[in-house]
Amino acid sequence: MSEIDLPEDHPRYQSLLTRHRIEAGVEKGITSKQGLIAEGRGEAFDYLLGERTIPSADQAAQAAAAQLLLADQPVISVNGNVAALVAPEIVDLADAVGADIEINLFNRTPDRMAAIAAHLREHGADEVKGLTADGRIPGLSHERAKVDADGIGSADVVVVPLEDGDRAEALAAMGKTEIVIDLNPLSRSAESAAIPIIDNIIRAVPNMATHARKQQEMDREALDSIVDSFDAAAARNAGETAIRNGELS
Amino acid sequence: MSEIDLPEDHPRYQSLLTRHRIEAGVEKGITSKQGLIAEGRGEAFDYLLGERTIPSADQAAQAAAAQLLLADQPVISVNGNVAALVAPEIVDLADAVGADIEINLFNRTPDRMAAIAAHLREHGADEVKGLTADGRIPGLSHERAKVDADGIGSADVVVVPLEDGDRAEALAAMGKTEIVIDLNPLSRSAESAAIPIIDNIIRAVPNMATHARKQQEMDREALDSIVDSFDAAAARNAGETAIRNGELS
Repeated sequence: MSEIDLPEDHPRYQSLLTRHRIEAGVEKGITSKQGLIAEGRGEAFDYLLGERTIPSADQAAQAAAAQLLLADQPVISVNGNVAALVAPEIVDLADAVGADIEINLFNRTPDRMAAIAAHLREHGADEVKGLTADGRIPGLSHERAKVDADGIGSADVVVVPLEDGDRAEALAAMGKTEIVIDLNPLSRSAESAAIPIIDNIIRAVPNMATHARKQQEMDREALDSIVDSFDAAAARNAGETAIRNGELS
Repeated sequence: MSEIDLPEDHPRYQSLLTRHRIEAGVEKGITSKQGLIAEGRGEAFDYLLGERTIPSADQAAQAAAAQLLLADQPVISVNGNVAALVAPEIVDLADAVGADIEINLFNRTPDRMAAIAAHLREHGADEVKGLTADGRIPGLSHERAKVDADGIGSADVVVVPLEDGDRAEALAAMGKTEIVIDLNPLSRSAESAAIPIIDNIIRAVPNMATHARKQQEMDREALDSIVDSFDAAAARNAGETAIRNGELS
């Protein structure tokens, strides 16, 4: 039995599952008003993209998986919408690449932090970072700068799905290698990323985990070559072209 | 003093005013969860359109104003987002063309109906229809079919901004002349409209009122010729082209 009462091959399955999870996120205090508006923006871009993973986004997911496997200390940053939409998939990706999971909210409140941590644990996360908040990202105002010193604070590679532009730029300025998942190829987040994945997180996160599991037997040289052959600007351009030229239905 | 603490010529004024009004709508019980997601979808399309009224949308607004002035019984349909975003502008447009205002909700609850009616009255609406609900639109399920018999039920021209596709199609099937405001040029609502306005309602509604006031002295022949020269398919195509080719920023 699936999470919603529809077979997985139903043409609207993915979009109805997304809607179901976002609404459940509101009930649980995970998704904010801003999160609902952001979800709508994502829906529109995904509609224009044809609700599919374009080849350049699949290559980006492959490079991201390799980058995470190469990392000394990879961290996956999770906000309200990420937790609501892909909690089990994030836990699975963290497991596949050996990454920590850290909660980071644009609108940080103790209640939302606790609700999101509980939701991630329900979906199998052992350790959830972000609650200590003893580190700071330089150049951001107090609440938005908070990170765990032994999490994002000292990470070399961070996955920031659905991150706001200011934070994405500030993390890049700290020298972190950023993997961004964003449906808007010209957002500041996508532009500050070493690896921008222009795709819906519902598709991108499990796709990264699948690639990572295939790459687990590869040596560093092979992984390096996957990362080196990835071209961020070309991936953003391909995303923009797909949005411009996609079939509206 | 403006409604938000920013001068009207600030580059982000319109977008911040929109955000402010939508959030106030949530506080007042006017805007639903679905409404917030829909707002986000609109934001993305408007971003791709360049957050401006394109020439074909201005022509559509002009044709819509003329069509309303020619109507025997024009009605403007208002849902939660319309009330939250453009209540004073809807009241002004209704005044300029002599139209009734009727509340019609996709998710109809007595509380939301009452909150929206109160909000419209606060912004100067004398009479608000939609609460009697003694008429039905054929082909829709019970709650979504409800209209006032002496409102949308007997209207010849209806303005349905931000309408869902099923209702827009059912109203067109009843023989109503529909004016739709929708940022997605290929939505079923835009496709079922006699006059689709591919624009943000924040800009389109006051623009229609401005055109109507300029047209008030025209005779029926002049108004007819404005309506007749409007080409709905060309307007939808122009909207799609603008979204495809607009400058992303």
